[in-house]
Amino acid sequence: MKKLDLFCSALIVFVSSGVLAVAPALCAQENDSLPLMPLPAQMVLGQGQFLIDGSFSIGLEGYTDSRLVLGRQRFLDTLTRETGIPLSAEAQATPPTFIVKTAAASDAVQQLGENESYRLDITATHVQLTAPNPLGALHGLQTFLQLVRVTPQGFSVPAVTIDDKPRFPWRGLMIDSGRHFIPVPVIERNLDGMEAVKLNVFHWHLSDDQGFRVESKRFPLLQEKGSGGLFYTQKQIGEVIQYARERGIRVVPEFDMPCHTNSWLVGYPQLGSAAGPYKPATKWGILDAALDPTQESTYRFIDSFLGEMTALFPDAYFHVGGDECNGKEWDANPKIQAYMHEHGLNDDAALQSYFSGRVQKLVAAHHKIMEGWDEVLQPDTPRDVVIQSWRGQASLAAAARQGNRALLSTGYYIDLNQPASQHYLVDPLGGDAASLTPEQSARILGGEATMWSEFVDGENIASRIWPRTAAIAERLWSPQQDRDVPSMYSRLAVVSQKLEYYELHLQSNPLLMLQRMSGESDPRYLEVLAAVVQPPEGYVRGGLKQYGPSTPLNLLVDAVPPESETARRFNDLARLIAAGKATAQQLQEARDWLVLWRDNDAKLQPLLGQSELTQELIPLSHSLSQVAAIGLQALDDLENHRATSAGSVQENTQLLEDAAKPQAVLLDMVAPSVELLVQAAGAH
Amino acid sequence: MKKLDLFCSALIVFVSSGVLAVAPALCAQENDSLPLMPLPAQMVLGQGQFLIDGSFSIGLEGYTDSRLVLGRQRFLDTLTRETGIPLSAEAQATPPTFIVKTAAASDAVQQLGENESYRLDITATHVQLTAPNPLGALHGLQTFLQLVRVTPQGFSVPAVTIDDKPRFPWRGLMIDSGRHFIPVPVIERNLDGMEAVKLNVFHWHLSDDQGFRVESKRFPLLQEKGSGGLFYTQKQIGEVIQYARERGIRVVPEFDMPCHTNSWLVGYPQLGSAAGPYKPATKWGILDAALDPTQESTYRFIDSFLGEMTALFPDAYFHVGGDECNGKEWDANPKIQAYMHEHGLNDDAALQSYFSGRVQKLVAAHHKIMEGWDEVLQPDTPRDVVIQSWRGQASLAAAARQGNRALLSTGYYIDLNQPASQHYLVDPLGGDAASLTPEQSARILGGEATMWSEFVDGENIASRIWPRTAAIAERLWSPQQDRDVPSMYSRLAVVSQKLEYYELHLQSNPLLMLQRMSGESDPRYLEVLAAVVQPPEGYVRGGLKQYGPSTPLNLLVDAVPPESETARRFNDLARLIAAGKATAQQLQEARDWLVLWRDNDAKLQPLLGQSELTQELIPLSHSLSQVAAIGLQALDDLENHRATSAGSVQENTQLLEDAAKPQAVLLDMVAPSVELLVQAAGAH
Repeated sequence: MKKLDLFCSALIVFVSSGVLAVAPALCAQENDSLPLMPLPAQMVLGQGQFLIDGSFSIGLEGYTDSRLVLGRQRFLDTLTRETGIPLSAEAQATPPTFIVKTAAASDAVQQLGENESYRLDITATHVQLTAPNPLGALHGLQTFLQLVRVTPQGFSVPAVTIDDKPRFPWRGLMIDSGRHFIPVPVIERNLDGMEAVKLNVFHWHLSDDQGFRVESKRFPLLQEKGSGGLFYTQKQIGEVIQYARERGIRVVPEFDMPCHTNSWLVGYPQLGSAAGPYKPATKWGILDAALDPTQESTYRFIDSFLGEMTALFPDAYFHVGGDECNGKEWDANPKIQAYMHEHGLNDDAALQSYFSGRVQKLVAAHHKIMEGWDEVLQPDTPRDVVIQSWRGQASLAAAARQGNRALLSTGYYIDLNQPASQHYLVDPLGGDAASLTPEQSARILGGEATMWSEFVDGENIASRIWPRTAAIAERLWSPQQDRDVPSMYSRLAVVSQKLEYYELHLQSNPLLMLQRMSGESDPRYLEVLAAVVQPPEGYVRGGLKQYGPSTPLNLLVDAVPPESETARRFNDLARLIAAGKATAQQLQEARDWLVLWRDNDAKLQPLLGQSELTQELIPLSHSLSQVAAIGLQALDDLENHRATSAGSVQENTQLLEDAAKPQAVLLDMVAPSVELLVQAAGAH
Repeated sequence: MKKLDLFCSALIVFVSSGVLAVAPALCAQENDSLPLMPLPAQMVLGQGQFLIDGSFSIGLEGYTDSRLVLGRQRFLDTLTRETGIPLSAEAQATPPTFIVKTAAASDAVQQLGENESYRLDITATHVQLTAPNPLGALHGLQTFLQLVRVTPQGFSVPAVTIDDKPRFPWRGLMIDSGRHFIPVPVIERNLDGMEAVKLNVFHWHLSDDQGFRVESKRFPLLQEKGSGGLFYTQKQIGEVIQYARERGIRVVPEFDMPCHTNSWLVGYPQLGSAAGPYKPATKWGILDAALDPTQESTYRFIDSFLGEMTALFPDAYFHVGGDECNGKEWDANPKIQAYMHEHGLNDDAALQSYFSGRVQKLVAAHHKIMEGWDEVLQPDTPRDVVIQSWRGQASLAAAARQGNRALLSTGYYIDLNQPASQHYLVDPLGGDAASLTPEQSARILGGEATMWSEFVDGENIASRIWPRTAAIAERLWSPQQDRDVPSMYSRLAVVSQKLEYYELHLQSNPLLMLQRMSGESDPRYLEVLAAVVQPPEGYVRGGLKQYGPSTPLNLLVDAVPPESETARRFNDLARLIAAGKATAQQLQEARDWLVLWRDNDAKLQPLLGQSELTQELIPLSHSLSQVAAIGLQALDDLENHRATSAGSVQENTQLLEDAAKPQAVLLDMVAPSVELLVQAAGAH
């Protein structure tokens, strides 16, 4: 076995283009030498490559079941999309060149902690995938698919031996179907994406103030009054669960209560803590609506509802939410206040705790293990309850210290438009959790990326989830020491391209949105602008404009990805230039970008006015042009070793800081990089 | 009512860029002033525009059924995709601003000649769609969707009154699922495209030498031995028929016989004219396999098979193929020869005629009207048999003269990579058919685009069918006098963009193929080359390389559209320049293109070698560069009024003619245009 030196060289070239900050460690890290994501636990490169052509065939040995047979067919379908070579299980050669050996059956319902390991041996002539069960085999097939690349000899995978298993047993993606309904085909495409990066829990947030999204036969007014007609039938739910199972993914439903329940109360106001009537929510944010925890009829309803839903969802875990109660309805209801006083419930937290305790007993009576957000954790919470932490690693650690199992979502809020690097470096066993004892650490089950849907719908959700969630998937699967950001970004780019073969349309959907908003079939100048702007991070967007469930998500901010690849690369260049470490080629590259941005506005301006949707971009486009002109001046000064005057630096800095503020709910991501150049030119 | 002058101006601007050859007639032609395809029978522009925002609502009045309700939902879904504005039938305002008034029910099974008319009245405040039945209403909804555009005021449709009905009752698209299996979702996307341009017959070619694609319960070896595992279940067939019905489309199945039946004979060799065994076909072309028309067991089989299939397909028409018998198996079989002699069947044509007659009786006994290709027509063919003409307008006219109804496919063979303009100008009542009497003309039912699938699969078929088939759809729907090619191309571009909202991925699938073949996520230099090459026309491709069902369709020739838009526009420029009529701006535009092509090769060359799939493009890329350099020299000469020497002209012409020959199974479409420039420079 030998290291694949070629790939190391390639990475060094990459370094020399200024994208990588730290290079030498890379070639020492064997894991980085193949574009896999998540990185496997162990990997040893072999010699040569295994060619994929029309004679490719794959056979199943040992234990076999329909999931493996279907998995093989999907594997062949994906491999066909990756290569364009027609492959089918029917037309298979004997003996096959790729053998999958599975030892035994998986659990009938996928369990937390079920063995997910596999071993993949690829030589120049044969492939062998060994796994204790179908779950591991499915993971191994995805690893193989990630390795496929085109070479002068054709499509191939490199010879390699991989021994792999996950670091954490709970690796999830939450999709919020409550705020915006997400159609079933979009859910399924994202399950495909999850399988590709070995995520194993689809946490389905199925109700919220703005929508109740599941057909209830016992309480039909839930969906009839609470969904605006947009809900999943029980048949569809069953199909999604089956679809997920075939891909090694558990489905954990969440019905958030006692708050975030406005949509329940439209049809069943008698459950509410206020007099009602409740109307469909028309805005985002924390609403006041809350179930009444003091009346027995509430628990009878929940009991019956849980009876229906626990039968629908086979997973052992059941999420009851429990987050963000503002308590206003409780405070305003004298009956509830009297009840609290009578039962020694001193505040709203105590009332919610009482509610959680009652609900937990109901969930347990229906043979499920309760999961809830931070707030459900109380000193007397049963030890089997799983806490999902959105408040931070401190509350995660607190749960584990108390004896509960917990998973992390703080840091994985992919609705907040943070860069992949930021999510990537958040470790479930970092921060406060780093000081846990081994026994306590073992209670940290993993984590979940959360796709809250205030600003996504079926059209753009995939381009928000991916590719960044692949970086989170790696954090949850791969060894803790894999933390090299440049390596992550270089592999993320490959994975992002691979996801196109899963029909996630990460490239084409945003382009279609640009075409639509501009009315142009070739919106090339708008694309230049779109490539360097980003939605603001965190919860800023909601403060800049009024949004609600009926607000169209058809503007530039909805089309651009949360992280600008172009701006990130330009920032790397700017940092090198500011540090005086840029090569002539890098200086030229920076100049070319700046000229493009400076000159784009003149071409784009006349077009922006032609559409109501792009008119608001007129100042932003102009601002980008100004920013680029300032950047070019700074480059000139730097290259001519001419110090910019302090006054000019100050003036430009002010301009750049203004330019970096949100315009049309978008951030110009070039401005901060140009500020680096201006500061450097001033300090010369 | 007044003409929309703005649009006329826009067309004049378009003229000045050199794309239109004839301008003045355009603004006189009212039909051309909106980007509709097919053009409606009558249209009068009104004043103002109807805005589409979140308050948009649509109500059904008069007769209503599930097809209308589903049609309204699909309309709203498409409108949401066109605008990004969330719209649902549930959240509809009262009273609605768009009213659909339908008079009565359609036929239970869509009939040939059923009324398809509708009237669409759009004012600045209201829309009214009136139709005699749901079929007309569905067409009217599609017309509205085509009118949607973005303006400074938002999304809108122009005020207009349209009275519309089709010229021909049979407007079809044939898809060959026999040679390459086309998956159900791809079929469905193309049915969506058909609905968008008002095609109303999906002719499904379900069996051919290379594959038998329908599940037969009576004769399961048909699909088990004849499909390689790729066939439609009867359940899927039913779903596709329902899907088509909802979109106003009939489904006419074709089971081609007695020839093109190799796939039948793999499982049922006793039906064949040779001793067998028959093997799955591994190449294209006309095979020898033929049913034995001389044994009664053949007809018993067909009778039983027809019994099963006529029950599965509700349409009144049933296509039995009948084309391209080479007669070799019949000639070689003494038993068959004896039978022919005995029954006075003097040649293979007579034998086939005998077979067709027998089959026709069986089809009729199963209460269907037989349809067949040209060859089935004989003097004694019953008058109700419909002839599909692939041999030309002469045989079409002959059928009509004989009293049979007929439809045209000659000229609509979209597998032959001809330009849209060529298909567009073929008229079912042109050529020989122009001399038919009115009574005979009335027997010409319309036509069908035929998508034979030697060189398409599920991945690239849509980019072959669309947008060119929209031009054929217009020929079959719109008034005969609508024949303006520049107008057609300008509207085709709009329709092509619209089809993206039907998820046909005409833009993104080809890009994905370029990414795959190159291994690059941003194959920009390959895109430059791809934009100016085309697959050769006609049947040339099959002669350049060996192809068969297992040949991957993953090369550049498979990714590029059949007609290069860039090359077509450059050709318009070159013709203007050669005629001395180009403006300075047009000369500059031509120069910019040529510089791009000349310089592209240097950047592309190093990349082409990195993939086995692009290596063959090395000479082609180099050749394009040379062609462009010659073009630039000619431009220089022309602009400097310097005559190129005759020797140089001759030498360059030779080079260009070589460059115009197929390379990597592709044509450089720039070379002929550059030859125009060289000739012009020589003649100076």
